[in-house]
Order: sequence, then C-alpha cells, then structure tokens
Amino acid sequence: MFYIMKIENYWTKRQTVRNFSDKEILEELLCSLLEKASFAPTTGNMQLYSVVVTKDLENRKKLAAFHFNQPASVSAPVLLTFCADFNRFIKWCEQRNAEPGFDNFQSFISAMLDVAIFAQQFNTIAEINGLGCCYLGTTTYNAHLIAKQLELPKFVIPVVTLAVGYPDGEAEYVGRLPIDSIIHTEKYKDYSQEDINDCYSEKESRTDSKRFIAENNKENLAQVFTDVRYPKSQNEEFSKYFTDFIKSQGFKF
Amino acid sequence: MFYIMKIENYWTKRQTVRNFSDKEILEELLCSLLEKASFAPTTGNMQLYSVVVTKDLENRKKLAAFHFNQPASVSAPVLLTFCADFNRFIKWCEQRNAEPGFDNFQSFISAMLDVAIFAQQFNTIAEINGLGCCYLGTTTYNAHLIAKQLELPKFVIPVVTLAVGYPDGEAEYVGRLPIDSIIHTEKYKDYSQEDINDCYSEKESRTDSKRFIAENNKENLAQVFTDVRYPKSQNEEFSKYFTDFIKSQGFKF
Repeated sequence: MFYIMKIENYWTKRQTVRNFSDKEILEELLCSLLEKASFAPTTGNMQLYSVVVTKDLENRKKLAAFHFNQPASVSAPVLLTFCADFNRFIKWCEQRNAEPGFDNFQSFISAMLDVAIFAQQFNTIAEINGLGCCYLGTTTYNAHLIAKQLELPKFVIPVVTLAVGYPDGEAEYVGRLPIDSIIHTEKYKDYSQEDINDCYSEKESRTDSKRFIAENNKENLAQVFTDVRYPKSQNEEFSKYFTDFIKSQGFKF
Repeated sequence: MFYIMKIENYWTKRQTVRNFSDKEILEELLCSLLEKASFAPTTGNMQLYSVVVTKDLENRKKLAAFHFNQPASVSAPVLLTFCADFNRFIKWCEQRNAEPGFDNFQSFISAMLDVAIFAQQFNTIAEINGLGCCYLGTTTYNAHLIAKQLELPKFVIPVVTLAVGYPDGEAEYVGRLPIDSIIHTEKYKDYSQEDINDCYSEKESRTDSKRFIAENNKENLAQVFTDVRYPKSQNEEFSKYFTDFIKSQGFKF
C-alpha cells in the first residue's frame, strides 16, 4: 500500500537533481535500467537510438566543458549521451540488400522522437529506483564537439544528455503552469492577453522566479528568459552549428 | 507487494494497444493524467507544448484520415495531438516587454524534445492506470493538414498523436534489440558486419517479422522497412511537406 502511495505521489513530486553524492552506480543496475527503458514505444520498432555511457573522469571533464560546466555535468558520476542513430539501421539494410532512404528530415525527426522517448523512459525508471537525473539541454548546442569526443559516425546525432547519480541533499521544488493552460478541447483556442496572465501569474510569483529576476537585474521573469538564458543571438549561433552538423552527418534538409 | 511486482514487470511487459473498447475515458481522469505528466522534465521549465484533445466523432474521423485511417486512429475514443508550442511563451514575452528570439532551429528542437518527453510521460502514467495507447508517427507527415483542422497558430507544430482508450483484447508482444546493441562505453564503437548480425538476428527470427516478409512478398525484414513501410520517395515527399510547414509556422532554418 505504501508503494502505491509512493508511485502515485512520484509523478508530481519528482525533481531534477543537480547535486550528486560520490556513490557509484553499479554497472548491472545501469544496464538493467537502460534495458527496461528500451521497451518504451519506438517508431516502427526500429529503435533509432544509441546511448554512450561516460564514467571515466577525464572523459567526463571533456564532456562537461561542452555543457559549459553546468553543476550537474560536473557532479554526476555518469553522463549518458542519448543519440539519434540511423547508422545501425542503415548498416543492417545495406547488409540485407535493402536500399535505405533515411537521409532526410522525416527520418531525422523519427530518430529525434525515438531517442527523446527512450531517454525519458530511462529518466522515469531511474528516478523511481532512487537515482537522480538532470537533462543537459546543451547537448544540441555543442553536438559537433560532443560527436567528435564520442567518435560518433555518420547518421548519429547527440540529442540529450542525462547526468545521473545518487542525489545529494534535497532538490528544489519547482511548479508547473496550471494544466488548463496546456489543454485545448477539439480545436486550439489561442490565448488572449488575460489568458496569458492567468497562465503565468503563479509562475511569476514563485520565490525562485523572484530570485532569478533580482540576480539578473531584470524587470520581470520573461526578460530573464529572453535576455539572459536564451537570447536571440545565442539561439541563432547554436542553430547554425547544429544544422551544419546534422547535414555533415548525412541528413539532407 | 503485488503492486511492486506489477510496476517492476510493467516496464518490459508494456504493449502498444491498437484496439480499444467503447468505454469512455472520464474527463477528470484524462485531465489528472495530463496534469501528472506535466511534471516531466522540460527545457528551462518553459513547458513548450500544448495538447489538443479530440473526442468528437466527426473531428476524430477528420484527424484519422490524416493518419491514413490506421486502426488505432479509428478505434480510439480519444486522440491527443501533442504540439510543440512556442506561441504561448512568445505571447507572454511580448506582453512583458521582453524581446523573444525563438524563431530558430534550436528553439524548434527544444520544443520538439519538450513535447516528446511530455507525451511519453503521459503514455507511461496512462498505461500504469490501465489505459492503452498508440503513438501515431504519421503526425509529422500531415502536420500541415492536422494544423489546419486543429486551427493551430504560428509557432505551434503537431509532433505526435496518442490514440488513447481502454484496451480491447490482448496486444501482441514484440521484443527489442539486445541492450548491448544500444549501449556504447566511453566512445561509440561502430558496428562490424558480425555486430549487425548479432543485433538483428533475434528480431529477424520473430514470428511477426516472418509474417511481415511473407505478407509483403519480400526477401527479408530490412526490405519490408525500405520498400514498403518507409520508402525513400515517401520519406522525401513528407520531408518537404514538413519543412515547408515548419517554416510557414515561423521557424527559420
């Protein structure tokens, strides 16, 4: 009965973990969690993904630098780089006298979705088993550098990285938008000015939001996102790196 | 104790459901499952997604046609179209005197990952609560038509659809590649000819694979994928539709 409570509470209580203890993750545990995650849904059961496990300290330091040394990337004993992977599938087709036609945008998107779904399934199973995880969204920013470090061949694209380990201390609780902000019934109902205020008012009033505004000396939370965290010029620079890299890996678009 | 067994077994026993009973999903249940899923990890806690719930029979028929009337799309009482959504976030920024710079490829990718992670979290929670789900990967094929039907504004892209309902009958068990095929240690180890055989031999020997080969009159399973399910010309045609559509929705790349 306790466990029912625990699972039911887990979904809304889960937290991203950015500080990890020194405790190692057993090889068998990691492999077992990844195996369970591989039963997540996948496009046509093609499993268009691979994961590169990095435990070696020197290799982790190199990867962490490509993630701007954000705390989770430095602190975690394991970095899992989840890659969209058409290399394995194409090689299989070529060995079976089947002509692959996967060097296009739809195929790239299929592999992107496959690997995100696989990574998220791992995230959930790992958290339920007592591990902590943090997504490093910076993976697509420096995909070209990460790919070189991990020796990724053509048709393999690093998409997300999970920093994984045993949590050290309590993670900070952060809320979400009211679910009504997300759900549309039958048709998309576009947001009026008042709707937008309703969506974001609770978020804007949170303690962590106020801290962000003060720390960054901005007028409001939206400006923290546009001016500091995800500025236009940076988004455009990293967009160019990523599209150039995807094309160099063999996908046309 | 029973529940621990059930959760532990769930991960590898879960199945995609394509046949649904007539039993309706209660509004409160659906909303509660979506709310739980919204606590999945999301880029910078931006929640760059929306979901359009389609229950109305006429509306479902229209959407099913865009999914080539595949059985799950016709049979399910609810279709959930999960959309990458920068519209809400951009409107918020504009209302707060913050200049959004999200009309680029990295921002598009962030929203794609956010919505895939959200959809997969919903899939897991729904299945654990006794519902059955089927991803409709055809969402990106006809994104432009689905968007028109759902009246999606600029910066909103339909990415995946989940057909959801109560299962009718038992779903077919399909296996996965050996986990060693997926995991790379420290660096990516490219696949030799023998490795490829090791990855795919069990899959090729499965009953459902043999049935696919026979039904489609092909030499082997790889040819079913390249010649029938995902042929090059079709992938390229739908790639053009999708990239044109993404650009028309406001993302530059």
